[in-house]
Amino acid sequence: MSNQLDPKRTIAELKELRGFTADENGAQRVAFTPMWVATRAWLRKKLEALPVEVHVDTAGNLWATLRGESERALLIGGHMDSVPNGGWLDGCLNVLAGLEILRRIAAQFDGRPPVTMRLVDWADEEGARFGKSLFGSSACAGSLAMDEARGLKDKSGVALPEALREVGIEFERVKESGAELKHAAAYLELHIEQGPVLLDLDLPLGAVLGTFGVERHAITFRGQAAHSGSTPMNRRKDAFLAAAKMSPEIYRIAERSGGGVGTIGSCTTKPGIVTSVVEECRITLDQRHLDAAALARMLAEAREASERFAREGNVGVAWERLWQIDPRPFNPELIAMCDEAIRETCGGSHRLPSGPLHDAAEVCGAGVPTVMMFVQSLHGISHNKIEDTKEEHLDLCVRAFDRLADKAMKWIASGRENATS
Amino acid sequence: MSNQLDPKRTIAELKELRGFTADENGAQRVAFTPMWVATRAWLRKKLEALPVEVHVDTAGNLWATLRGESERALLIGGHMDSVPNGGWLDGCLNVLAGLEILRRIAAQFDGRPPVTMRLVDWADEEGARFGKSLFGSSACAGSLAMDEARGLKDKSGVALPEALREVGIEFERVKESGAELKHAAAYLELHIEQGPVLLDLDLPLGAVLGTFGVERHAITFRGQAAHSGSTPMNRRKDAFLAAAKMSPEIYRIAERSGGGVGTIGSCTTKPGIVTSVVEECRITLDQRHLDAAALARMLAEAREASERFAREGNVGVAWERLWQIDPRPFNPELIAMCDEAIRETCGGSHRLPSGPLHDAAEVCGAGVPTVMMFVQSLHGISHNKIEDTKEEHLDLCVRAFDRLADKAMKWIASGRENATS
Repeated sequence: MSNQLDPKRTIAELKELRGFTADENGAQRVAFTPMWVATRAWLRKKLEALPVEVHVDTAGNLWATLRGESERALLIGGHMDSVPNGGWLDGCLNVLAGLEILRRIAAQFDGRPPVTMRLVDWADEEGARFGKSLFGSSACAGSLAMDEARGLKDKSGVALPEALREVGIEFERVKESGAELKHAAAYLELHIEQGPVLLDLDLPLGAVLGTFGVERHAITFRGQAAHSGSTPMNRRKDAFLAAAKMSPEIYRIAERSGGGVGTIGSCTTKPGIVTSVVEECRITLDQRHLDAAALARMLAEAREASERFAREGNVGVAWERLWQIDPRPFNPELIAMCDEAIRETCGGSHRLPSGPLHDAAEVCGAGVPTVMMFVQSLHGISHNKIEDTKEEHLDLCVRAFDRLADKAMKWIASGRENATS
Repeated sequence: MSNQLDPKRTIAELKELRGFTADENGAQRVAFTPMWVATRAWLRKKLEALPVEVHVDTAGNLWATLRGESERALLIGGHMDSVPNGGWLDGCLNVLAGLEILRRIAAQFDGRPPVTMRLVDWADEEGARFGKSLFGSSACAGSLAMDEARGLKDKSGVALPEALREVGIEFERVKESGAELKHAAAYLELHIEQGPVLLDLDLPLGAVLGTFGVERHAITFRGQAAHSGSTPMNRRKDAFLAAAKMSPEIYRIAERSGGGVGTIGSCTTKPGIVTSVVEECRITLDQRHLDAAALARMLAEAREASERFAREGNVGVAWERLWQIDPRPFNPELIAMCDEAIRETCGGSHRLPSGPLHDAAEVCGAGVPTVMMFVQSLHGISHNKIEDTKEEHLDLCVRAFDRLADKAMKWIASGRENATS
């Protein structure tokens, strides 16, 4: 076993994985399917060459543990599952970079590092089949809503508990996996950015400040259907007019928020015919910010604007919360270490929030000091077969992530992490 | 036979008609159905008591002709067909008021008035079954697009020519009905307003200036789908943002136009999910004005605005014309007579354009001097079982419409109408 980190091996393993899990439409490693089971078997085979204990917890997460002098553990996480027709890097880059770091540490410390090192492959990060993402990590973190998850069904009507049983997981016991975090002292996750920020800055890597909090709502305006020819403009109760005014307003609210984003992703109209004023218009709104108070302000401003536009247009408005999650700001010391590791590797770094959610948000929410590192996405696109990252950037990210792991391990060994966790 | 006009009889006949053609959801006299055939049989029975010739033309329009000293004819029109779940007055008020006037004239002139009087019940004004309104009148006026109409099918796949054959109409010969207009010297139509203008002015009756021209278009904005969490606001190509900006703009354009109206009646979004910026947004636009130049200006302004919003948002825009009809301004002398008849009957009058189309637009387009009279609609609503008009207003409209018929008949008899037709 080599004492040296070998990022080329990681790239070769990513390609090997793509070779047997992707078709012409992209990666097909959907959680709890036979392809996912085959992916896990392939990963276990790689782990066999290492002095690690491997087991699957009650939520289906796979853990590889390299015992150290201290039982306090540095965790590196990722997910082997993909969306259908997914990209070749999303989730598995994290795991395979972690695997390479585990190899380096096992070799360097002759199988006994100062602190315990654990690699985790979270189960069903994507939620592609049941519409509930972060399954394995939320079960482990204790935040999984059991009643809601119990009722989830896939498109063919199979319930989540039933699908889990088929891969040997007992639904009612998934939260027992929380015991895995008992000695967790820090959690690190590498991921492709899935956005265009690093691409625009022409930087390969960035330190992630945390994951955005999300407020997701449906807003329904209700006016009155009326003949498009015989109804004077000033007599109309036009639900579309009020809804339409929300779109530029959501941009203004995001701009004022200092770093937040807001999206109206869908709009439906009733009766929705060319000869009638719109009686009912429903839009969906997704607002995100890294700061909880700023997010609350964005939401309040959107609500106030919707009520103002409803008054102006003599229509009604009703809000329905679809989903909500708090922001998860990462650990400041780990962010600083991540930034430093990036600068040492490639000169420039950038700190940015994560718009999409990641397993790191769940681990962070469970109180484990956490940080993520992003590597540039070409096209700023993911969840698509064209998702890609330059090979030189893949090489750099493995090197920088290894430096971060080294710093975090020393931090844990020094006991300094206790001051902040 | 009484020499006196009897509006109470018209109201009684409207109720009699409602009694056997409406159910708890409204009027069900859809053209070419057995109920419509029964309605026609009932009307023919009423006409039997009069010294009129009755026949159905090649387009299925029913004509009752009271021959006069001159073959030059005053036409009064309406339609017995309704939309499904329609109102009790829409279309049949016109025919039954015309019937009452025919009775008055036949009695007054002992069956031989100075000019010929003709009552026409147009076939399928509503177009409820085949989606093509003004069928009988457009065939008669010569404007029916035969190739388009030939291909029309109802929801169960029955083609229009087939449905016509079942009620004894040969599709390929429908335009031969144009011969009916040979001696037409003027055309009058009474109708419920179907809008709130007279209601707001607290006036029972109004003189109609003409029917709006209509420009009907689908506008599709095309941007780029992008993750709602990871895409910075200034990097978005948001098709919904550009489409949404059109809504207040369409109101501004209508206000500037002096009397026109504009409606965005539907909006669809793709992919239309809460977590993605909208890639494609399609809206439908319906603009109407009584003046052709003003309508062209409204359309040009909407097009220019759409291109401006597309540029601002870095998205594309494409227009597709769905339908178009020119404005049909009515005959100025007949408008003046209509106004006068209304003032003589109830003191105040108001001139207003018609937003909805009517058979009158087709007859007008064929070069026959035309005018319409509107009676107030309660709630400003039609095509609905709650459509209604106060009985005192129904009484007034029959009286005023009779005065108008009297004036128009004298106008034709004097030969003055030749100067303007």
